[in-house]
Amino acid sequence: MTYQRVLIAGQWRDPKKAAGFFHAVNPANKQPLPEVYPVSGEDDTDEAISAGKQAAVELRRAPADKIARFLELFAEKIEAHADILVTAANLETALPKEPRLKNGELPRTTDQLRKAAKAARELSWCRATIETSVNIRSMMGPLDGPVSIFGPNNFPFAFNSAAGGDFAAAIAAGNPVIAKANTGHPGTTLAFARLAFEALRETGLPPATVQMLYRIPPELGLRLVSHPHIGASAFTGSKAAGLRLKAAADKAGKPIYLEMSSVNPVFILPGAVEERSDEIAAELFASCALGAGQFCTNPGLIVLQKGDRAERFIHTLAEAFAGNRPGILLSAGGLDSVLEAVEILKSAGAVLMVGGKEAEGEGYRFANTLLRVDAKTFIGNPRDLQTEAFATASLIVVADDTRQMKEVASVLEGNLTGCVYSHTQGKDDGAYAALEPELRTKVGRLLNDKAPTGVAVVASMNHGGPYPATGHPGFTAVGLPASMLRFAALNCYDNVRPHRLPIELQDKNPTGSMWRMIDGQWTQRDV
Amino acid sequence: MTYQRVLIAGQWRDPKKAAGFFHAVNPANKQPLPEVYPVSGEDDTDEAISAGKQAAVELRRAPADKIARFLELFAEKIEAHADILVTAANLETALPKEPRLKNGELPRTTDQLRKAAKAARELSWCRATIETSVNIRSMMGPLDGPVSIFGPNNFPFAFNSAAGGDFAAAIAAGNPVIAKANTGHPGTTLAFARLAFEALRETGLPPATVQMLYRIPPELGLRLVSHPHIGASAFTGSKAAGLRLKAAADKAGKPIYLEMSSVNPVFILPGAVEERSDEIAAELFASCALGAGQFCTNPGLIVLQKGDRAERFIHTLAEAFAGNRPGILLSAGGLDSVLEAVEILKSAGAVLMVGGKEAEGEGYRFANTLLRVDAKTFIGNPRDLQTEAFATASLIVVADDTRQMKEVASVLEGNLTGCVYSHTQGKDDGAYAALEPELRTKVGRLLNDKAPTGVAVVASMNHGGPYPATGHPGFTAVGLPASMLRFAALNCYDNVRPHRLPIELQDKNPTGSMWRMIDGQWTQRDV
Repeated sequence: MTYQRVLIAGQWRDPKKAAGFFHAVNPANKQPLPEVYPVSGEDDTDEAISAGKQAAVELRRAPADKIARFLELFAEKIEAHADILVTAANLETALPKEPRLKNGELPRTTDQLRKAAKAARELSWCRATIETSVNIRSMMGPLDGPVSIFGPNNFPFAFNSAAGGDFAAAIAAGNPVIAKANTGHPGTTLAFARLAFEALRETGLPPATVQMLYRIPPELGLRLVSHPHIGASAFTGSKAAGLRLKAAADKAGKPIYLEMSSVNPVFILPGAVEERSDEIAAELFASCALGAGQFCTNPGLIVLQKGDRAERFIHTLAEAFAGNRPGILLSAGGLDSVLEAVEILKSAGAVLMVGGKEAEGEGYRFANTLLRVDAKTFIGNPRDLQTEAFATASLIVVADDTRQMKEVASVLEGNLTGCVYSHTQGKDDGAYAALEPELRTKVGRLLNDKAPTGVAVVASMNHGGPYPATGHPGFTAVGLPASMLRFAALNCYDNVRPHRLPIELQDKNPTGSMWRMIDGQWTQRDV
Repeated sequence: MTYQRVLIAGQWRDPKKAAGFFHAVNPANKQPLPEVYPVSGEDDTDEAISAGKQAAVELRRAPADKIARFLELFAEKIEAHADILVTAANLETALPKEPRLKNGELPRTTDQLRKAAKAARELSWCRATIETSVNIRSMMGPLDGPVSIFGPNNFPFAFNSAAGGDFAAAIAAGNPVIAKANTGHPGTTLAFARLAFEALRETGLPPATVQMLYRIPPELGLRLVSHPHIGASAFTGSKAAGLRLKAAADKAGKPIYLEMSSVNPVFILPGAVEERSDEIAAELFASCALGAGQFCTNPGLIVLQKGDRAERFIHTLAEAFAGNRPGILLSAGGLDSVLEAVEILKSAGAVLMVGGKEAEGEGYRFANTLLRVDAKTFIGNPRDLQTEAFATASLIVVADDTRQMKEVASVLEGNLTGCVYSHTQGKDDGAYAALEPELRTKVGRLLNDKAPTGVAVVASMNHGGPYPATGHPGFTAVGLPASMLRFAALNCYDNVRPHRLPIELQDKNPTGSMWRMIDGQWTQRDV
């Protein structure tokens, strides 16, 4: 059998003792694509880990500027090969070529790579801290091994394990990456890995700085997050798979960063419904339908206070759900899992208003789905009623009053985002003030009068949140340089002679503009 | 039975359905002390968790200045009651009243509380980050529940669960604390909790901001780190106990910060031995003997290159070990465990040079102990030969050359510290450069020509390190404000109206001097 090649230890090569093979499937016509991808076995996995460890040692000696140049060159190559990438991703995910892939996700991906390059070059990300009175200096530095990245199916570019946000952050922090392709888009990942490898060679970084496997059996996935030579890992995907990886990593004492599930509650306060019901319904539907509802920040739970105005809002929203054609889901598995989720919601007492079943048309399609439940029922069974339905499928929770809306917030699990829509002239100020403290502790990003699906790549972004949205509430997967801190260790130097210090901690500011905390003050000056 | 009272939900009260009782033991004469302390059961534990959760909600509304005043008032009360504390701790730990407890550890403790107060008041610790172009703002904020703290036996003041570094950091970051006293010094912890509670009342903070239990059965310890209402936990102590707590916390998705074990390798390069053998031997012995060797940063592993000079150094060091009287260990259990550790080291091929058995004299004493092993044997069995012997007990590893010293570094587990002694005029520069990259990834704090036992409370300190020294390589347990970041969540505000933002993120700089990252620049200005 002729497999697509894996990238291990600086070589594009055939798999060694492949554990199987697979095809990608075009979700638009449910047909397998022709390329044959290997399921790598122990030999490939262990060789990747070993080469990654060696690259980690070598990469510590690479100047930050060289790492930055690699990231920039990679971004340029992505732009130069945009058509290949867009075509591959469209075939494998059925996401629209334009505007989504070409004009949205691709520029976002190159922007992330360039922002990571900028952060690596500026050096400020490492939070160098110097206390001159005792000559103790510290900074965040690379980990002691490669970072394993497991990318999700829903962002073939921006979260791709060989090009996306985790990749950019891990490399910029000075770590090699072992990319485990999402099995939904192996061809896209292969195309990225080719460009990354070219950029590596042209930059002169260690060849095993980027390695790529398409698929591995589950037990080797556990090895990839728990092996003594692994520095850390990042996973974006289902809660079930994430928790299995987390258990293995935790047991081995290896950091793992997970982005698992989130229903992203939206609270619409009474004044907002009164003031701009239709506007909010339109904004919410657009947010729910983005990417066929397959966004991590998709609003899956909409909470409002009962009444005539609420019923009108719900009616408007239901019409939008019913009147728009659903997008194509990423896979047959995705279709099964949203069907299952809707069944769980219904069994727990939610009433189906719109959709709830597979939709007509070519490809994997699930009808836009809206369910409703009263708040008392929700509060009585919050676990089942927070089941994530990864599609354009949302649950409306109708509360008796704003006090009960707060009770709903109090039984929520950890989420990436939480939104509160409020009256623009202050009518909801009291209700907001009562709700906010409860909601604040449940979500990573709190939005006010804004839908959650846009995730700006800025320093102040938090694409993270309390468990089980992620595995740790203190870190973000999006936003540079903050996301780099996941892939770094705190390195302290006590009484180390000046010429033996890393340049970030020497008396002279290495760039002339790097921010360092010297004796309690952030400064760009020399010591 | 008349128990000492527990502090739960703002009340000093008798335990409910105690699961047992215990006495502290004076290690200097092995006699139990008269006070009877309860082992708390489920009722006490659950009530503390529940009250702590409520206090967490209330504490979010407390101004930072009030939290700071509490910490400062507590520090003042500690100073005013220094004699009581010193007497209690001396009885329970046999650590010398002077200089150790009164002139060393007590001022360190109040200094930590004041530094935490300063950090809380200045607000800069929360790393407020504002991107004006998109109006997204973020900061580190308190967790969603109380912090459980399990203090160690070896620092009854500075790491006390009701007064030490973890306590100060957790409170300063805005979290209530549930202090689980170390069962070695319940009376000392009681004395601290009394003063803390007085300071709470006088400051007007929620009464359950500080709660204290003396002891709980192991399964309730697991609950204290894994209950849904717990925010996070911190543990300093043995690896076995730490790993049990970690497993429970990990499974529940709750952050836990552990400081578990460390042999703190010291590499003495040939030039340093040639240049100042006696001086280094004296400095090392003093470091090894501090606190009867019961420091987390105690140098338990000394690596050097074979030869006549090395033999002379070893001889000098052995004389210091043999010629000085050992201090008193903290407990019978400590004595047993160091005996066991020395047996493991011997079974693995280490040869006993000095000590190795219980010592004469009143109290729990273990003879100062020095063992040696050749590097080849060490490299062949690094696990057993890194067994921590928590006393004045160290293992010398003799290598053939500096290349083999590096090999020793390569098989080390994660440690809090690692030291390299080197020639002052550059003779060891080559050997240092070869060794450092290997050692750097194994330790949190790298020292050069300095013994590791001093842990300065400064912003640039790292009292942390790779697993299994701790549970995460990115955090420090000592050094303010950095240690506060363990007990915080990243809170992002997206498009939130100005009057609804926390003061740290409003346009106006809330103190006039708080450091914030605004549009990529650290600044003390308003937006």
